Amino acid sequence: MPPILSIVGKSNVGKTTLLEKLIAELKRRGYRLATVKHDVHGFDMDQPGKDSWRHAQAGADAVVVSSPQKLALLQKTDHDASLDELARLLGESYDLILTEGYKQSSAPKIEVHRKAAGQGGLLCSPQELVAVATDEPLEALVPQFSLEDAAGLASLIEERFLSRPRQEWTTLYVNGAQIPLTPFVQEILRETTLGLVSTLRGVDRVETLELSFRRKP
Amino acid sequence: MPPILSIVGKSNVGKTTLLEKLIAELKRRGYRLATVKHDVHGFDMDQPGKDSWRHAQAGADAVVVSSPQKLALLQKTDHDASLDELARLLGESYDLILTEGYKQSSAPKIEVHRKAAGQGGLLCSPQELVAVATDEPLEALVPQFSLEDAAGLASLIEERFLSRPRQEWTTLYVNGAQIPLTPFVQEILRETTLGLVSTLRGVDRVETLELSFRRKP
Repeated sequence: MPPILSIVGKSNVGKTTLLEKLIAELKRRGYRLATVKHDVHGFDMDQPGKDSWRHAQAGADAVVVSSPQKLALLQKTDHDASLDELARLLGESYDLILTEGYKQSSAPKIEVHRKAAGQGGLLCSPQELVAVATDEPLEALVPQFSLEDAAGLASLIEERFLSRPRQEWTTLYVNGAQIPLTPFVQEILRETTLGLVSTLRGVDRVETLELSFRRKP
Repeated sequence: MPPILSIVGKSNVGKTTLLEKLIAELKRRGYRLATVKHDVHGFDMDQPGKDSWRHAQAGADAVVVSSPQKLALLQKTDHDASLDELARLLGESYDLILTEGYKQSSAPKIEVHRKAAGQGGLLCSPQELVAVATDEPLEALVPQFSLEDAAGLASLIEERFLSRPRQEWTTLYVNGAQIPLTPFVQEILRETTLGLVSTLRGVDRVETLELSFRRKP
């Protein structure tokens, strides 16, 4: 999974504006970025009358529209997806996932703060925070950046999340549920699968591997 | 992967209308459905000014909006995704994927035909077709249904695609590319992985399994 970093803060402090600046700066530096917006109110994205809208209205649980330039997936769901589920949906082709919101998740965070947003200090504890973007100096023991300093924040993000080669990881889902794996079990699964797969035609160096199957239960 | 069935036909013969009726009928019968619309012209789904639109405008390669009822993924792409790629994105929670268009793919098809659409007969060869929905009798050696007969078509679809227990299958992707597997290799990969995984805590009967990892190359 790509690393996940959340931009959080109270209402109307400028989370989207900061995120726009960060996205533009990180794109300039050549990264592939996915963003996630947490919308607690629900949203409408499809346009009435379009074929995809007609499919959804007729009852389809998911609708995909695919063109050579863009792909859209609209999916009905019965729960608020976790960042892990969303990262799995996004797959392996991004360098970083930036989220707007998700202050309850365990992902590392940048908090946006404004003097005008009133009392009460920061939403997050210093342990959760990678940095604060703020229009006033704070006492928190966390790196602080001005609200305009997208370049400074981007450099911190590069250093913390993007400079090292991607971590090794192993995930296992059985019947749709994630199974926790100790490092030892991860290694056994990885090495055994690699041993089998590396003899196949068309397989050279293995960087990522995905094996999935369905069998009669 | 769920079975895939394509609704194809010339322009303006009523593909979307037939699909709406089929979706409604199959939903009444209790199935979970995904649809795919092939859009060769490109499309706009996001609304200017929304946070997700601002993320995309700033340069994000993919944008997810997640709410407790709905999930949307908008993704920039550099190619026309194949039905296999789209099925992989949709995952394992649907009983059937119905597509509008994709007449070039190898998926089985229902062709919609109208007398008024003019000469030239059917687009597809009988071997590709599961059925024809038509407003005039045709000579093709394929089951024929009226354009209104969603119930008849749905029963044929149930019998052909939904009545049997899901097929067993095994897929392997290495560095993002699918590796072809003989039945023998599929069985070895499946049985070896099962042997390892079935000893783990939390694993009981295995119906579907997904193992993925990233390692240092």
